[in-house]
This record gives sequence, structure tokens and C-alpha cells, in this order.
Amino acid sequence: MVGGILTLSDTYREIDSCVTAPQGFRAGITACGIKSDGSIPDLAILASDVPCIASGTFTTSSTRAAPVLVCQEHLKGDRAQAVIVNSGNANCATGDIGLHNAYRMTELVAKKLNLEHEMVLCSSTGIIGRQLPMEKIEAGVAAIELSKDKGNAFAEAIMTTDTHPKRIALEFQIEGRTVRLGGVTKGAGMIYPNMATMLSYLTTDAAITHEWMKTEVKAAVDDSFNMISVDGDMSTNDTCILFANGLAGNTPIDAGHPEAEIFRQALRYVTQYLAREMARDGEGATKLMIVHVNGARDKADAVKAARAITLSPLWQCALAGGDPNWGRISAALGASGCALDQARYDISIGDVQVMKHGLAAQYDQEAARQAMAGNEVTVTIDLHLGEDKATAWGCDLTHGYIDENTLYTR
Amino acid sequence: MVGGILTLSDTYREIDSCVTAPQGFRAGITACGIKSDGSIPDLAILASDVPCIASGTFTTSSTRAAPVLVCQEHLKGDRAQAVIVNSGNANCATGDIGLHNAYRMTELVAKKLNLEHEMVLCSSTGIIGRQLPMEKIEAGVAAIELSKDKGNAFAEAIMTTDTHPKRIALEFQIEGRTVRLGGVTKGAGMIYPNMATMLSYLTTDAAITHEWMKTEVKAAVDDSFNMISVDGDMSTNDTCILFANGLAGNTPIDAGHPEAEIFRQALRYVTQYLAREMARDGEGATKLMIVHVNGARDKADAVKAARAITLSPLWQCALAGGDPNWGRISAALGASGCALDQARYDISIGDVQVMKHGLAAQYDQEAARQAMAGNEVTVTIDLHLGEDKATAWGCDLTHGYIDENTLYTR
Repeated sequence: MVGGILTLSDTYREIDSCVTAPQGFRAGITACGIKSDGSIPDLAILASDVPCIASGTFTTSSTRAAPVLVCQEHLKGDRAQAVIVNSGNANCATGDIGLHNAYRMTELVAKKLNLEHEMVLCSSTGIIGRQLPMEKIEAGVAAIELSKDKGNAFAEAIMTTDTHPKRIALEFQIEGRTVRLGGVTKGAGMIYPNMATMLSYLTTDAAITHEWMKTEVKAAVDDSFNMISVDGDMSTNDTCILFANGLAGNTPIDAGHPEAEIFRQALRYVTQYLAREMARDGEGATKLMIVHVNGARDKADAVKAARAITLSPLWQCALAGGDPNWGRISAALGASGCALDQARYDISIGDVQVMKHGLAAQYDQEAARQAMAGNEVTVTIDLHLGEDKATAWGCDLTHGYIDENTLYTR
Repeated sequence: MVGGILTLSDTYREIDSCVTAPQGFRAGITACGIKSDGSIPDLAILASDVPCIASGTFTTSSTRAAPVLVCQEHLKGDRAQAVIVNSGNANCATGDIGLHNAYRMTELVAKKLNLEHEMVLCSSTGIIGRQLPMEKIEAGVAAIELSKDKGNAFAEAIMTTDTHPKRIALEFQIEGRTVRLGGVTKGAGMIYPNMATMLSYLTTDAAITHEWMKTEVKAAVDDSFNMISVDGDMSTNDTCILFANGLAGNTPIDAGHPEAEIFRQALRYVTQYLAREMARDGEGATKLMIVHVNGARDKADAVKAARAITLSPLWQCALAGGDPNWGRISAALGASGCALDQARYDISIGDVQVMKHGLAAQYDQEAARQAMAGNEVTVTIDLHLGEDKATAWGCDLTHGYIDENTLYTR
């Protein structure tokens, strides 16, 4: 997993499930009619049988939505037990009524599950600026039945313009006990570093201290969800929350726990996997872009450079066309603000080095086209200025993106 | 011209010409075959009969092109008399050979016009990473004939993906003498605040001190070219240069000159006009977007907010579709980093107020659609936090942008 590259050792076993894979988590969904077509699931609940230690990261937008404010408020207690999510309406730019409605969503779930409402979190995703249809949500909460086998349905119910659900679960051992970590995410447009229109929920039955969880969730999100971009638009609703209910029975993991690294790597893998799959499923995307920056002066520069490439619409268009127009990579790099020596940096597309020491390299044009032809294209940059590195994920820019976004509210 | 809004008082007369409108400026062009189709003009020279005071602003990219380096070197003397421009090849990422070739371009013109080569500037625009065909350029320079009536042809020869030339000339009086200020610009893609793939040349026969010119060119560029965006991609070659040959015979204008404001306003108008026309002609654009931000805490915030709206691909797509999806304006505003009170900001599209105090306003949906229907759409934001304001220009995002950029190097 060095430098954010996804690999999974024998320590971990991937299982065909997601947020309900760990012990004691259940989920349920319904189609309550928030989306204009009432046949599509648009309301979902994820809950643990017992209280969880929980920690979240949220959008840094100054127009953040009501549910984000409620999550931030409720997570002050470091604990949570359930989350309710609706798609089709972002409950954003909805003022006091919207805030009231977000609290009301948590109260409905609290009542249903017999919890304190502070133990319930909420998220919304969809169109901005409309009030939630609370009667539909009230009926929906009543209709939802929680069960162990509804994790994958949960992953589907939170989708908006996603073409498919993104989910994963890993199983591994801590203190000889079986531990599971599951995750889901949604998000395809308005995706940008610093938590884009994405909602992500992670669950584990491992016991973890809140302090260590906070540090590790932030670090994992920085190297995963904060390194993807579809269109540079940061959302008002971004949310990533980890719930740990401790049912695996291990000694709570903290920085000093001898097997902390096993959990950390699982968390890294799950978040990077979900982030990468979001980039791949960017609105209209036909190709996943993977950008490795090596040899940066410092980590911040590596991040800046890698993100800049994924954010360049010109390079995204070239990617769509399979055109190895590396001048656009070079231009985006120059504009990124990272420290750069014009006579030293190298750029490769796939295995084909297209720039060497800041100049066009001798390369086979057909090989370069081949390197652009697949549905995953890797760009590797070496700045030759230091030891730091970063990986970012993005996608191409196609007619499909525009078609999805020209008439969204109609 | 308050807040960057274009108006022209009776003090100024617009004339149908551009960079050769002021006394003593001539231009010439040729099709020397740098562009694959040798029938399209791709090499141009603009020259003054006498030495000029000159000042420029350039890309801040750290992969700036060879001609930018040469301009910056030659302008250390505060004077210049000619500029040579080629389109079709950016002479960027071309190393020592590229730098040598850029100097060589200035030498060819210097020899032709019998000038010191330090008095000649050069620009290149087009594909990155290829060496210039110097034999063609040498033949081209020899073939070019300079004349008073080739200003408009000059504006055409420097185009790349522009659909039409952008040019303007104003006539006004300083000390009772007739003064002219002309300008041309090119640029349609890779357009972003901080000097995008744009080349702009301004000429005047007014006499101006170099110190005042430097200040005023920077201020004018900040409120014009640095406030436009097509795609957020900053270029490696951006250049804006003002040449003042003093042939009008006025006392050199400085900050204390009683009519300095007359020249300043002309410079503001010309740069804002050219900037706006570049945004309107953005690659694939069908609509000009004008964003006014009022009531900002400070100028930097106003700039940040206005730019953020023009840079949002989601809002650009909504604009293309004529969809008044103002939630995207609000989201882009929130992500911009400007100071914002969620309970106070207002947003209007055209004359239709769609958000009031951070909430959906009561408005007629059909009127909002109408406000999006024309080929110029104005967004006005009032942050209600202070007195500062800014205006930015952008365009919509369409299939046309993608079509122009998927196979550029093929």
C-alpha cells in the first residue's frame, strides 16, 4: 500500500458484502417517493445492535447542508449507533426548516430503534434548495425493516447518479479474533478533493479507541476520498463516518496496540478501494485515471501535483479521446503550484516515458496510444526533487458528463 | 466601469480597427506552414516605427514557455518596438533548443526591421512539446510585409481554436491631442484566471511613463483577463503586453497627470472588452456567463467567489441546458472559500432572485428559465458582508468543448 497503491496481502480476505458484514450491523431500505420516480429506493437506515465509537469527516464548504451540521453536533459525544440517509434531496440551503427536518430524521429513527436521538446521524444527497418531504420520510422510516442481508441494498439506496453501488468488506484477525471492516460509498458528480458529493459509511466490529479512530479516519480519508476528482466541484453534503461496535471483543485498538497496523492497513485499503471506484464511476466516465507523483519536495507538493492532473479538463478530454497529449499533463503540472525544476521532471503514460528532463522523450507514438487505450490509464510523474509521493484518482470528461448535468433539475 | 462593468462614456469613440489604429504601428502576417494546413496564417509581426515604452504580464506557471522567458528578459529594459507571434506550436517544454529558437525569432525580426534584438518580443501558441520549424519561420519572417491596414489580419493570424478574432480600438483626447488605444487577444481553451492560453497585445500612441504603465497594466489585467475562465486550465504561454510609442506627443502620463484617469478608463475598457469576448468565445461555448459578486468582506473574497462560479463545471453544464439550477451556484460559492453567512447571501439569475438570505426565494420558475435562455446570462450574488465587489466572465460547458479537446494532437 506504499504511496497509496492498492494491494492486499494474505492477512486479509475480501468478502462479498459490505456494511453489514461486521457482527451486529443491520440495514434496511425503502422507496418512499423522495425521488420523483417512487419506485427507486431513496431512504435507508444502517444501525448497530449496540452503541458504537464513531468518528466522521465532513465537507469544508461554508454552505454545508443541514444533515452535516446535525452529524457534527451528534458526534461531539464520540458515539453513534445508527445513520439514516436519503437520496434525491440534499437538504441544503434549506435554513431553519431544513435543520429542523434533519434533527427530525434522527428522532424518527431513534424512536423506531429505541435510542437517544443523539446516537443517530443523518445524511442527505440530491438536489439543493428544496425542503424534504417529511411525511414521506416519516412513512418511509416506519416501513423500513432492518436485517443482516440488506447491506448491499443500502449501498444501492444511497446512490444518485452512480451507475452501480460501491461496496467492500474485509475480514482479518486481531488478537486471534475475527474482525470485519465493511464500507459503502456513493458519489459520481460534484466530486473534488476535500470531500465531494460523497457519502461513505464504514463499519467494523473491532473495538477501537475514539482518539486513535479520529486520527486514522482523517489520515485514511486524506489519502483516499480527498485524492479523487471528477469535476472539481466540492459538495455541500460530503460525509464519511466510521462506526466501531466492538463486538469482536478485542482490546480496544489504539496507537500502542501491537496489531494496530493490521487494522490501519485494512482501513487504508477499504477507503482507497471505495475512492478509486468512485472516480471510475464519475459521471459520464469511460476511463479511470490514476496519477502517481514521485520525487516531490514534500507531501503537500506531491498532493498538489497529483490532484492538478486529475483536475485538468483538457487532459480529461485527451484521456476520453485516447490522445497521449502529454503537453497538457505538463501544463497542468506547471500550473499546480508544486515546486518544479523545468529541466528535471519526467512523465510517463503507462509504461511509456513521454517526457524526460522536462523535454519530449524519444518514444513510440503507437505505444503511447496503446497506453491510453484501456479503461485504466496511469500517469506517473517524477519531479526528482525529493522523496515524497502521492496518488490521485480521476476520470475522463465526456459528452456523458454534460448530458447528465445540463438538465438535472427538470 | 464601476465593479468591472463595461460602459463607455462620450469621452471615447470606438473605431473599427485594433493594434494598428494608434499612429506609427504596423503589422504583417503570413502562412508559413507551422499549422499542418499551410493555408492558415500562423506567423505575424506587430511593430512600431519608433521605440516604445512597454510592460507585460505573463503566466505564473512554473512550466512557462521559452517565448515567455525571452519576453521577460527583453522587457527588463522597459522598452520594446516589435513582437513576433506564431500560432500552431507553443514552443513549450522544448528546453535549450526551444529557448534558442525563441531568441532566434527575435533576431530574425530585429534584422528585418533594423533593430536591436532586445527591442523585439516573441510569443508562441499551440501544441506543447514540439520544436519550432525554424526554416519555415525564417522564410515566413522574410515574406511578411508590414502595413498600417494589417491590424485585423494580425488578430486573425494569432488565433488557435478561437472562432473569430477579438479586437478593439478607442480614440480619445489627452491634452487636446488625439490618442488611440488598440488591442487584440486570442484564446479559447486552457483559459483560467492568472493568464490562461491567451496572448494579448495593446498599442497606444500616448506617451506614458514606464512606472505608471506597469502599475496600470497589472491592475487592468487583474480586473479583466485574470477574471475569466473557460476550463480552469492555466497555460504555459500567457502574455499581455502594452506598447506605447508616444507619437501623440502628450506629456508622458503618470499618476499625477491631470488626465491620467482618461487613459486608465480606456485601458480598463479595452482589457475588459477583450477578456469578455474571450470568455464568450470559449471552446464550445454557446453562452457568456457574467458573474457579479457584491457585498464581499474584501476584494480578495469577491474575486474568489466570482471566479468559483465561472469555474464550476456543474453550473457550466446547467447554463448550457438553460436549467436555473441555482443550488450549484450556491454550492460553488460555499466551496470557494470566501467569507459567507449562510443566513444572509442572495443570488439572482438575470433579474430573477432565486435565493434570499441563503434560502430558496419565491420566484416564477418560467421567469428563471427565461433568464437562462439568452446567449448572455448574468448571475448576481450579494454576500451582505461588506462593500467589496468583483465581476468574472465565463461560459457554458458543452459537447463542443469536449469535441475540440479529445483529439487535439492527432
